[in-house]
Amino acid sequence: MMFRATVLTLYPDMFPGALGLSLAGRALEAGTWVLEAVQIRDFATDRHRTVDDTPAGGGAGMVMRADVLARAIDHASPEGDPRPRLLMSPRGKPLTQERVRELAAGPGAVILCGRFEGVDQRVIEARGLEEVSIGDFILSGGEPAALVLLDAVVRLLPGVMGNEASGDEESFENGLLEHPHYTRPQEWESRSIPEVLTSGNHKKIAAWRRAEAERLTAERRPDLLAQPPKRAT
Amino acid sequence: MMFRATVLTLYPDMFPGALGLSLAGRALEAGTWVLEAVQIRDFATDRHRTVDDTPAGGGAGMVMRADVLARAIDHASPEGDPRPRLLMSPRGKPLTQERVRELAAGPGAVILCGRFEGVDQRVIEARGLEEVSIGDFILSGGEPAALVLLDAVVRLLPGVMGNEASGDEESFENGLLEHPHYTRPQEWESRSIPEVLTSGNHKKIAAWRRAEAERLTAERRPDLLAQPPKRAT
Repeated sequence: MMFRATVLTLYPDMFPGALGLSLAGRALEAGTWVLEAVQIRDFATDRHRTVDDTPAGGGAGMVMRADVLARAIDHASPEGDPRPRLLMSPRGKPLTQERVRELAAGPGAVILCGRFEGVDQRVIEARGLEEVSIGDFILSGGEPAALVLLDAVVRLLPGVMGNEASGDEESFENGLLEHPHYTRPQEWESRSIPEVLTSGNHKKIAAWRRAEAERLTAERRPDLLAQPPKRAT
Repeated sequence: MMFRATVLTLYPDMFPGALGLSLAGRALEAGTWVLEAVQIRDFATDRHRTVDDTPAGGGAGMVMRADVLARAIDHASPEGDPRPRLLMSPRGKPLTQERVRELAAGPGAVILCGRFEGVDQRVIEARGLEEVSIGDFILSGGEPAALVLLDAVVRLLPGVMGNEASGDEESFENGLLEHPHYTRPQEWESRSIPEVLTSGNHKKIAAWRRAEAERLTAERRPDLLAQPPKRAT
């Protein structure tokens, strides 16, 4: 099954961007996934190709129109399209590695990139858009967030990572931050690799890594250890 | 003061990427900020230009070498460079809008993009790298995360946003998710703009928006309302 990504954007030239190189780029060339960028402006109907208007109730900025977006969505994702429809938005549910894995196991994604102050709420409801946030910060638009989401998903598609094993031991896959890494040279600027790692004792090495992962997580991300109640969907 | 970003990467062609268009791209052309991408591989010393080696203690993947990275960092950010040195890493402190604002108020940033399993811990310590995470998911490398961080920072540089006011009322700037937006048409697919927003009563509009922001935050992000203890630095 081929993973199909369709991105709705005012800046189609931002794609594939970073996704055209490295792992994701090779997978794109190999046909492991396809990426289509759709210009939202093509679905405006006036001669100025207007996609936004002033916010109802006043305030700064502009809001993307429900009617124009709905036409773009209906074109890119007609009824019966099994792909989830995502809206990249700081108001969304925070993206997790679990959701990334689910998406990678599915048929693809339709991703709407918001711009300006936001998107008319009615199109979010009428077209069942799933609002997804990549973090508690504000971007100029949804496009950089879409690049991040797709990068995370594509690396999990079958055959994309050279070394399949390296998908397992990483941060968040076991609820902990990853332990520190070391490699040659053995001695660098008077700093040595911790002795245990060159001991050849695999049991001790595994125990040291686990302890370091737990220590780092407790230090930096106690929220991951606390296992707060699942966030609302 | 001009914001100077230097990105250390194995994929310099990923830059400026999405940052070459739209708000950030216009600011780049206008000289509001500068972006330099440095090829880490240029600082390898063997004829294969090796930048990584197998992990001490065994395991999957490869680790980026401390000596090569240190040479790249020392070239890009010599002693006395006032810019913070960031390492994009899922083990890092989660990026917040507060940190974005701090960075935008500063002289720039040196951003190291990790690849493979990670970076030798000794160079993180010896060169005082600040590990920054954009979220609890795994990317193919630090590059998409660096694009996101720079996009968030650049839009806050003086003169970049057309409408300065729109920087204020947004998600996270007041600790709440943003209220829903609406714009014309007044009626769309039998859905109307909420009456209060077209009432012209500014006090009622402000109260409705505040209540909606609080409702959404409680529904989707109770963690923001709980104000957990500040994460360790």
